[in-house]
Amino acid sequence: MGETTNKLLAMAKKVGTEIPKRELDVLLATGEQQTVALLAIALQNLGIEAQSMTGFQSGFVTNKYHTNAKIKEINTEKVEEIVNSGKVAVVAGFQGIDEEGDITTLGRGGSDITAVGIAAHLGWDCEMYTTSECLYTVDPELYPEAKPIRAITYEEMMEIANLGADKIETRAVELAKKYNVKLFLGKSLETDKSKGTYIMSKEMIINENLLVEDMPITGMSIQDEVSIFTLRNVPADGKAVAECFRTLGELEINVDMISQQMAADGKCTVSFSCSKEQGDALQAELDGQEVFSDIIVDREGDLAMISLVGVGMATHSGVASKVFQVMAENDIRYYHITTSEISISVTVEMDQKLKAAIALCRAFRL
Amino acid sequence: MGETTNKLLAMAKKVGTEIPKRELDVLLATGEQQTVALLAIALQNLGIEAQSMTGFQSGFVTNKYHTNAKIKEINTEKVEEIVNSGKVAVVAGFQGIDEEGDITTLGRGGSDITAVGIAAHLGWDCEMYTTSECLYTVDPELYPEAKPIRAITYEEMMEIANLGADKIETRAVELAKKYNVKLFLGKSLETDKSKGTYIMSKEMIINENLLVEDMPITGMSIQDEVSIFTLRNVPADGKAVAECFRTLGELEINVDMISQQMAADGKCTVSFSCSKEQGDALQAELDGQEVFSDIIVDREGDLAMISLVGVGMATHSGVASKVFQVMAENDIRYYHITTSEISISVTVEMDQKLKAAIALCRAFRL
Repeated sequence: MGETTNKLLAMAKKVGTEIPKRELDVLLATGEQQTVALLAIALQNLGIEAQSMTGFQSGFVTNKYHTNAKIKEINTEKVEEIVNSGKVAVVAGFQGIDEEGDITTLGRGGSDITAVGIAAHLGWDCEMYTTSECLYTVDPELYPEAKPIRAITYEEMMEIANLGADKIETRAVELAKKYNVKLFLGKSLETDKSKGTYIMSKEMIINENLLVEDMPITGMSIQDEVSIFTLRNVPADGKAVAECFRTLGELEINVDMISQQMAADGKCTVSFSCSKEQGDALQAELDGQEVFSDIIVDREGDLAMISLVGVGMATHSGVASKVFQVMAENDIRYYHITTSEISISVTVEMDQKLKAAIALCRAFRL
Repeated sequence: MGETTNKLLAMAKKVGTEIPKRELDVLLATGEQQTVALLAIALQNLGIEAQSMTGFQSGFVTNKYHTNAKIKEINTEKVEEIVNSGKVAVVAGFQGIDEEGDITTLGRGGSDITAVGIAAHLGWDCEMYTTSECLYTVDPELYPEAKPIRAITYEEMMEIANLGADKIETRAVELAKKYNVKLFLGKSLETDKSKGTYIMSKEMIINENLLVEDMPITGMSIQDEVSIFTLRNVPADGKAVAECFRTLGELEINVDMISQQMAADGKCTVSFSCSKEQGDALQAELDGQEVFSDIIVDREGDLAMISLVGVGMATHSGVASKVFQVMAENDIRYYHITTSEISISVTVEMDQKLKAAIALCRAFRL
């Protein structure tokens, strides 16, 4: 059903240049409704009792933000009733209704959120099946020696997902973490569970003996087409910086790395990164802003951000120094390094990406 | 969106040989959901405030007979609310939910029924727009001198709809009659209402001065591919006849004309007509029935049924005799004539259809 959403969008564009979000949700929700009906039909034809459910039937109550609604409440009685009667409940992902009964969709990653939401509410585990066998320490296309990850913590997964991996949506992992839902990612039709990846708390990983080795770094993710903005000569009263980040918020720009340094003259320098696409929107906006008139805006537009993620980082010292050392030994120029509790990210020129990634994979045995 | 239902059915057949009706309804209801979203988008792009509604939102509560559900209750508060706020309510036809919240569809003519149902509930008029300008006294393709019908009673319309005209579903007209809903059939984009056809009670027609002339016959409808069964040597105790019609009911065969005559030997002869397709199903069934062993079953398989309909028939004598006279004068053999309060139907060989129809049109000035 992969093409359904695009086809529906094309139909909408034929009848109007402005597509009201409420109606777009009514239209887009039909794709998942068709999918669940077809899956229920297929299951019943395999002799498995099954029943489909749309958003209003499965009890997903959301706020009113059409096309990007957030779940307010899940009334799972009907799902439980179906499952308790021995049937498979086939629940339409991505959709719900608001408190006035209008159809809403959950936006990007909405199907993951539906699945985790039900599991969280009922205290069940949640398994997700796609075309890839498991998560790897790094993209195997890039680095064929990449190792499969058997278990990863919620926090690491959120860092990796935020940093561009498309296996599972951050909002879904966040929900799983909040309610301690054991997640499993596996390949469709693969029955050997030892081939997939579990996502859970560090305690659960230890309890289930899934921690193979106490490695500081669990995985690497790479984001292409990153822009870095550097604002110089910024008044240090905080007003200009606040204004800048307000603008970023209004443009719905997700900033990945922020750093601020004081200069000798009492002014400061602020850097941050975002996707190249969002950077273009920001550039247009910044050019017209009064408050930025004295500030010098530099932008590096075509970078790659390589991130190393691992909860072990908090207890293993020397990760940052090892990154600096790898960069120096391989003669790779980097623009920015930032760290969080469990990650370290470095931006390099696009044409240095592969060299840097492989050097870091080797150094951290990914 | 005409092809949507067939495409959805084809998808369902790909995943299963048995298609459970509950899931078929979930699947088929998406077609109308897409249509109402697209129509609401189109209206808003024309500057007209509009809001789409699916079956569960518009308050159509039905019984549980999936794919052919009947309306139990219509809760029109939300439709009223939208309309009272100055918006167009774009309600998905053909669908509802049952009391457990399962999606149902209303079967053939379901969209007409949805429209009339809302109008009936709210005391509004109901207008339906298609590609044809109005109803005609007889199909203009067949008889180019056919006259437009400006107004027709519910009863006449039900006879004509039952007899094969496809302008509007009988169930919808029945509902309109029950609640005295003024119906209007017109052509899309035609703004001159005097070109369409009103369907209402005889009193309303008289009150609105729409009765042009006190004609006995309002219109003619023709049904092709009709079968007539004649059962001879049937015991007159009623048991065999009852059994036969029980079988017809089980096969969901709609019988159009029934007549029964006593023979001299205490046995009786029963005739009835149905569509050729249903006749084939019945034939197969009758061949295996014990109770029919002594009964002689004759079948004429390739007939056309011409029906004249008009409320004036009840007050104008001589309609039947005029029909007999037209048949005789034109040397047309007929198999069966039956009459109701407001209609008279005659079956002829398919190759005599046109000759008979034109002769009757001329005789009754249609």
